Amino acid sequence: MKRPAAGGEDALTALIALVQADLEACNRLIVQRMHSPVALIPQLAAHIVAAGGKRLRPLLTLAAAQLCGYRGDRHVALAACVEFIHTATLLHDDVVDESSLRRGQASANALFGNKPSVLVGDFLFARAFQLMTDDGSLKVLGILSQAAATIAEGEVLQLVTQNDISTTEAQYLAVIEGKTAALFAAATRIGAVVADRPEAEERALDAFGHNLGIAFQLVDDALDYAAEQERLGKTVGDDFREGKITLPVLLAHARGDAAEREFWRRTLEDKEQAPEDLARAQELIERHGALRDTVARAQGYGDAALEALAVFPDGPVRRALAGIVAFCIARAR
Amino acid sequence: MKRPAAGGEDALTALIALVQADLEACNRLIVQRMHSPVALIPQLAAHIVAAGGKRLRPLLTLAAAQLCGYRGDRHVALAACVEFIHTATLLHDDVVDESSLRRGQASANALFGNKPSVLVGDFLFARAFQLMTDDGSLKVLGILSQAAATIAEGEVLQLVTQNDISTTEAQYLAVIEGKTAALFAAATRIGAVVADRPEAEERALDAFGHNLGIAFQLVDDALDYAAEQERLGKTVGDDFREGKITLPVLLAHARGDAAEREFWRRTLEDKEQAPEDLARAQELIERHGALRDTVARAQGYGDAALEALAVFPDGPVRRALAGIVAFCIARAR
Repeated sequence: MKRPAAGGEDALTALIALVQADLEACNRLIVQRMHSPVALIPQLAAHIVAAGGKRLRPLLTLAAAQLCGYRGDRHVALAACVEFIHTATLLHDDVVDESSLRRGQASANALFGNKPSVLVGDFLFARAFQLMTDDGSLKVLGILSQAAATIAEGEVLQLVTQNDISTTEAQYLAVIEGKTAALFAAATRIGAVVADRPEAEERALDAFGHNLGIAFQLVDDALDYAAEQERLGKTVGDDFREGKITLPVLLAHARGDAAEREFWRRTLEDKEQAPEDLARAQELIERHGALRDTVARAQGYGDAALEALAVFPDGPVRRALAGIVAFCIARAR
Repeated sequence: MKRPAAGGEDALTALIALVQADLEACNRLIVQRMHSPVALIPQLAAHIVAAGGKRLRPLLTLAAAQLCGYRGDRHVALAACVEFIHTATLLHDDVVDESSLRRGQASANALFGNKPSVLVGDFLFARAFQLMTDDGSLKVLGILSQAAATIAEGEVLQLVTQNDISTTEAQYLAVIEGKTAALFAAATRIGAVVADRPEAEERALDAFGHNLGIAFQLVDDALDYAAEQERLGKTVGDDFREGKITLPVLLAHARGDAAEREFWRRTLEDKEQAPEDLARAQELIERHGALRDTVARAQGYGDAALEALAVFPDGPVRRALAGIVAFCIARAR
């Protein structure tokens, strides 16, 4: 009998165990390549890169390459590229405008300021392209430079739709496709590229990463309003405070009455928030089943991700990747 | 008799005339490739890219290719890459921290805010790497990704030395080598690379761009304290207000007495500046011949740039490039 795909942290542990040596090599390369004679660069980069994180994206590259039967070490450097690009976007995402600074931040930015975060992000981005150039595959360079442009487009679109409650679900989806799914898709796709697998497998891994990325972000957006998170001592309400328009809000807004819509307009568009407003937002989202339905939507994308894996024969890596889908969604349960 | 290399704006006009058609093609490509369905991206990018500027760096790529006898159109796209990288660094250089915002800004940043400047910079940076990937030369990718990393290192080093009057001349030089000379050197070097010229010509063009870039930045740093600039209605004192440690300041500080050093410490390190302090700074810099000597230093690098051109036969392009050296230095006369 097949071992069922584990959910929760077990799935992550299972995947890590399968690529353990590669992941360690990747971590070593990351530390080595973020070095610079300008000491502030590794200092600040370490604050994000070495601060742990799940290394989910490089793990996906390593696992995808293994799924494709790749025997070599190019995937290690490319996994490091993926993590560098991700870290650069995190650093740049930390950059704030004057208005937000008043609210206080808990990020590299808070410790070092806007400008170092931007410049160290640029450094890591450049390093990623140096690593890719050393690898020598124009195909990989094309996939990751396209992903980088798409990420920037998604992030700008997010800014444009921020504080605008008339944002459509299609626009919201375009934002998360750009800011999250594009790099997940590229990370898994290049696993097939290094292994020189047929186009169908490349496309399957791209679809897997894309759908997993959307599911991941939907769950993230749900967690930002989840009472359970609060009970666990985790931060909620960041999106609310920033006026980010996410699916839980869009669903609650669409299902709400006139007074509720006025509440969303005041808090998200006019940015007039009283201390009790977050609790009210959570209550409205809960009452309209908006969290449940956001997670259900995530499950739909998760199912699509699993479907995409069907072109690969069953085996421990495929099962571990399926487990990652369950892991991403289980975070919300 | 040879026509002497023109100084001033004439030299720029002469160079532009030689690469006119290529420059127009490059400008068209820039506008075309900064397009995005996310309208804010071309809007903000246009604010810098299309706002004119001298297009000095792409001009150098186009001229270097022509100097090497290149007959093709790859240099046009690579010149656009160089301009995209330059524009991205300008946008990221505009990013400010809370303290600086209080002083007011006149930049894309002032119109759009920190975050759009960062993200559109990222987009242009990604686009540059897409263009390079389309071009297909791993050698060019290596040169420009290395330059991008070096620029970021130079900019971070500049931050680290800011407000520190004990910065050495060697550190100052490392800053301007990174933030300015690296891209000038890459811009000219790739002219030889596309033309597939021998290593000696590649190195000569790299040395030309490197020395020209240092001369250019030295003059820029001098102009920021030049009374003549003020009379022309141009801004002076930006570096002073930001506490940037540049050669005019280092020379005046080293040559000053105890009271003067205390002045530099208070204004640049403690950032305590009264309205009349800029005039006092200019007066000290003038009295110690620090502007004159900064420009003399620039002339030395300019001479080294001219020397580097000697491996190429005399002709209109070589003369026009020599004219650009004179142009960069003449700005300070």
